[in-house]
Amino acid sequence: MPATLSDLAARFGCELRGEGEKLITGVGTLTGAGSDALAFLANPLYRSALEGTTAGAVVLAAKDQDACPVAALVCENPYAAYARMAAYLHPPPPVRPGIDPSACVAGDAVVAESASVGPQAVIGSGSRIGEAVAVGPGCVVGSRVRLGGGTRLAARVTVLDNVVIGERCLLHPGVVIGADGFGFARDGAVWVKVPQTGGVTIGNDVEIGANTTIDRGTIEETVIGDGVKLDNLIQIAHNVHVGEHTVMAAMAGAAGSAKIGKRCVLAGGAVIVGHVEICDDVMITFRAAVTRSIRKPGVYSACLPADEAPRWRRNAARFKRLDSYARRLRSVERRIETLDEEPTEKRRKHD
Amino acid sequence: MPATLSDLAARFGCELRGEGEKLITGVGTLTGAGSDALAFLANPLYRSALEGTTAGAVVLAAKDQDACPVAALVCENPYAAYARMAAYLHPPPPVRPGIDPSACVAGDAVVAESASVGPQAVIGSGSRIGEAVAVGPGCVVGSRVRLGGGTRLAARVTVLDNVVIGERCLLHPGVVIGADGFGFARDGAVWVKVPQTGGVTIGNDVEIGANTTIDRGTIEETVIGDGVKLDNLIQIAHNVHVGEHTVMAAMAGAAGSAKIGKRCVLAGGAVIVGHVEICDDVMITFRAAVTRSIRKPGVYSACLPADEAPRWRRNAARFKRLDSYARRLRSVERRIETLDEEPTEKRRKHD
Amino acid sequence: MPATLSDLAARFGCELRGEGEKLITGVGTLTGAGSDALAFLANPLYRSALEGTTAGAVVLAAKDQDACPVAALVCENPYAAYARMAAYLHPPPPVRPGIDPSACVAGDAVVAESASVGPQAVIGSGSRIGEAVAVGPGCVVGSRVRLGGGTRLAARVTVLDNVVIGERCLLHPGVVIGADGFGFARDGAVWVKVPQTGGVTIGNDVEIGANTTIDRGTIEETVIGDGVKLDNLIQIAHNVHVGEHTVMAAMAGAAGSAKIGKRCVLAGGAVIVGHVEICDDVMITFRAAVTRSIRKPGVYSACLPADEAPRWRRNAARFKRLDSYARRLRSVERRIETLDEEPTEKRRKHD
Repeated sequence: MPATLSDLAARFGCELRGEGEKLITGVGTLTGAGSDALAFLANPLYRSALEGTTAGAVVLAAKDQDACPVAALVCENPYAAYARMAAYLHPPPPVRPGIDPSACVAGDAVVAESASVGPQAVIGSGSRIGEAVAVGPGCVVGSRVRLGGGTRLAARVTVLDNVVIGERCLLHPGVVIGADGFGFARDGAVWVKVPQTGGVTIGNDVEIGANTTIDRGTIEETVIGDGVKLDNLIQIAHNVHVGEHTVMAAMAGAAGSAKIGKRCVLAGGAVIVGHVEICDDVMITFRAAVTRSIRKPGVYSACLPADEAPRWRRNAARFKRLDSYARRLRSVERRIETLDEEPTEKRRKHD
Repeated sequence: MPATLSDLAARFGCELRGEGEKLITGVGTLTGAGSDALAFLANPLYRSALEGTTAGAVVLAAKDQDACPVAALVCENPYAAYARMAAYLHPPPPVRPGIDPSACVAGDAVVAESASVGPQAVIGSGSRIGEAVAVGPGCVVGSRVRLGGGTRLAARVTVLDNVVIGERCLLHPGVVIGADGFGFARDGAVWVKVPQTGGVTIGNDVEIGANTTIDRGTIEETVIGDGVKLDNLIQIAHNVHVGEHTVMAAMAGAAGSAKIGKRCVLAGGAVIVGHVEICDDVMITFRAAVTRSIRKPGVYSACLPADEAPRWRRNAARFKRLDSYARRLRSVERRIETLDEEPTEKRRKHD
Repeated sequence: MPATLSDLAARFGCELRGEGEKLITGVGTLTGAGSDALAFLANPLYRSALEGTTAGAVVLAAKDQDACPVAALVCENPYAAYARMAAYLHPPPPVRPGIDPSACVAGDAVVAESASVGPQAVIGSGSRIGEAVAVGPGCVVGSRVRLGGGTRLAARVTVLDNVVIGERCLLHPGVVIGADGFGFARDGAVWVKVPQTGGVTIGNDVEIGANTTIDRGTIEETVIGDGVKLDNLIQIAHNVHVGEHTVMAAMAGAAGSAKIGKRCVLAGGAVIVGHVEICDDVMITFRAAVTRSIRKPGVYSACLPADEAPRWRRNAARFKRLDSYARRLRSVERRIETLDEEPTEKRRKHD
C-alpha cells in the first residue's frame, strides 16, 4: 500500500528531512532500492552504503542524517520504525472470510464469520476459530482447539486436540503443535508409553517457524509466552515453558521440562537440556548447549569454530588427553618449585 | 475411563494401601493432583513433594509407602505401572471405522473394515491397511504400502511407496517415511542421482515423533526394529538399522548405513556418522557425535557445556593452539628432566 | 526397465567384459545381487566382496576387472555410470497428466497439459505449472509460483507465494519453500516483525530432502543454484545463497545472509552462521560450525568425537580451565628459561 513520506513520518513518529509529497511504494536495500522504495540504516557496518543510495528515502538515526543523500525519516530506533513502515507498505494478504467448499469442518466447530478456512483444511469437533483467523490450505486443526482472533495458520499446519493459541499469532507451514511428548517408562527391555495428557498453551503475538514442533505436556501444560518468536525446525519438548518475548533461532531446542525466562535470545542451534532453568534476559550464542541452570543474566557460549581440518584433528586428538596434560603441568610446576628451593639450599652448603 | 483403586491394583499388580472403593478419574502430578487423580513417585528428587500431596492415590515403591499421606499403589516399578494405569484411565480416542468421504483411496487398495481413513487423506494403489488402523486427516499413504493392525498415523503423515510398517505403531504429524536417501555420484562438477530403490521396514510397537524423517534404502532396506521409540525432528538416513527397543530423543540422527544396536539410548541431538556401528546397550549422552564404531556397552559423551561468554572465548581461543601447548609441555618436561640430572653431574665436577 | 549388458555398455560408454545378451532387470549390492541384477564397485573397501559376487554384472574400474568373477562393465567413474544405469533400469514413476478431481486449482493458474496435479493438492492464483511437472498428493502451491518443466513435488510439499523453481527439480515430502525469514526488530522488550518481502529462486536440477525449509528473502532473494542437492531437515535462512552444485547433508544449516560457494560439500549437521561467506570448493566436515568467512578452498572441521563418559567428563572439566593452563605453561617456561641461565651466572661467580 503506497504512502507519502509525510504520511509515514506522521504515522510512525519520525522527523522528515525531504519532500513530504514523495510517494513510497515498497522497500529495498540501501544498495538496491529504487527512487520509490524505502531503505533503512541500523547497522553501522552498512553506513558506507548510505552515500551511494538511490532509495526514495532512508529510515535512520539522527547521527546518520547528514550523510544521507536522499530524503530521510529520522528516529531513535530506525530498525523498528522501518519494520512498522514496511508492514504498512506490505500488509499481509487480507483474510477472505468463508469456508472453502473443499474444507472439512466438524458440525459442532464454531468458526467466526470473519474467519477464513482454506482449501483441503480440516477442523475437528468442538474447536473454536476466532475473528479474522486464517486457517490456510491443508491445515489440520484437531478437536476442542481454540484459535484466538487474528491468528493465521499459513498452510499445512497441524494443531492437535485441546491446544489453545492466543491472538495475532502466525504459524508457518509444517508446524506441529500438540504431538505427544516423548515419555516412556522402562520395564525390562521394553518401553511403556506414558500417556501425554497435558496440553499446549500459546500466548498472543507468537510466531512459529516452518516445521517447528511443540509437544503437549505430560500432565500439565507446555507454555509459550506472549510475544515469543520461534524460527524453523525448533523442538520444544513436553512441559517446557518459554517466557514472554523470548526468541529462538532455527534448529534451537528445549528438552523436557526446561524453563526459559523472559526476553531471552537463543541463537541458531542453541539447546537446553531437560529440567534446566534459564533466568530472564539470558543470551545463548550460536549452537551452545546449556546443561545446567543459569541464574544470572548474561551471554553464554559453547561453540568451537571450524578450523582447517589438519589443525583441527591435531587439537582434537590432544583434547582426548587434556586431563593428563593438566596433571603433567601440575607435576612440572611442583618440580620447578622444588628446583627453585633446592639450589639455594645446596648452594648454602657450598658456602 | 474412571477406575477404582482396587480395580487398578488388581489389573496392574500393585499392593493397595487405602480404600479400594475410591474412584480415580485421571492423572496428576504429586503437587497438582486432586483427590480423584492418580500421581506417582519414581524419581527420588521428587520425594519431598510426597508428604504434601493431595492426590487420590500415589503409585510408588515399597520404600516410600510410609511417607505417603494418601492411598498408595505399591509396586516394584512405579513409573511403568503408572504409565500403564494412565493409559487405562486415558485411552487413546477410539478408531471410528470407515473412510471419510473427502479421502481419496485407490480402487485397488485394501482397507480393513475396522480401519479409519480420515478427512483429506490419500491412499495409493495396492496398499493394505490393517485392522483398526487409523489413517488421520491429511495423511498421504503411497502405493503398495502395508500398515499393520492397530497402527495409527496421527495427521499429515507421509508414508511413501512400498514401505512396510508393523502393528500398533504410532506416527506423529509431519513424519515422512520412505523419501529418497541422499545418494549422488560425483561426475566432474555435477552430481548424478543414485536411484534409491530400497525400502523401509518398521517393526511393531514403534513410535515416531513429529517431523521425523526416515529415508528408504539405496538398494536394500532401512530397518527400524520392534519397540523403537523416536522423538521429533530425527533424521534416519538410508540403509540405517536401529535395533529393537532403542530410543532416540529429539534432533538425534543417524547418517547413511549406520547400525545402532538393541536397547540403546541416544539423548537429544546425539548423532552417528555414516557406516559406523554401535553395539547393543550403549547410551550416547546429550548432543554427542559418534564418529567411530562402539563395540563396548557403556555411556559415551561429547558435549562441552555452555559457559559465560568471555571465559568460553578465552578457552576456545586456547583450544586452537592445544597441539602446540602439548608439545611445549613435553619440551618443558624434558628440560626439567635434564635439570634434575644436570646439577648433580655438574656439582660432582665441582666436588 | 530391463536392458541387456550390451545395451547398457553402449548407452553409458562402458567396455563390456562378458556376454552382451545377458538381461539385467534391476540393481543389487555386491553381496546381495542375483544373476539378473547389476552391482558396482567404487569404494576399495568393498573390493573383497567382488570375488564372491553372484551379480549379473558389476560396474567397475579397469584396475578391478581381473578380480571380477562375473560380467563386467568397465569405465572410469563406476559410481556415476552405475547411477545412470540404475536410473535407466528404475525410472521414476511416469507423470500421469491431468488434475485429480479432489485437487483445488485456482481458476487463473496455468497448468501444462502434460503436468499432473495429485489428490488433495492446492494451487493458488496466477501460478504456472510447467510441462511434465508432478504436483504430488497433498501439496500446497501458493500464488504466482512458477514450477519449471519436469519438476516434481513428491507429496505434502509447500511452495509459498512468488517462489520460482527451475526445471527437473525434486522436492521431497514436508519441504517448505518461502516461509517468512526470521526477522524482528527489538523495540524495548517487544519484537516487531520485519516483513519478509523477498522471494526464493531455485535453479534447475535441484533436489531438496524431506522436511527441509528454505525461507524467503527479507527484501531480495534467497537463491539456490543449479544442481544443488539438499538432504533432509536442513534450514536455509533468508537471503542465503547456495552456489551451483553444492551439496548439504542432513541437518545442515545456513543462517541469515550466509553465502556458500559453488561445488562445496557440507556434511551432516554442518552449519554456517549468519553473514558468513564460504568460497567455492570448500568441504565442511560432520557437524562443524563455521563462524567466520572461509576464503581458501579446503577441508574444515570442528567436531569433537564422543568418548567414554568418565574420560570425556574429566577432559571437559579441564577445558573450562584451558586458558589458565596455557598461562601456567607460559609461566613454567619462563621459570625454566631463568633456571637455564641462573646456574651458569651463579657458577661464574663461584669460579
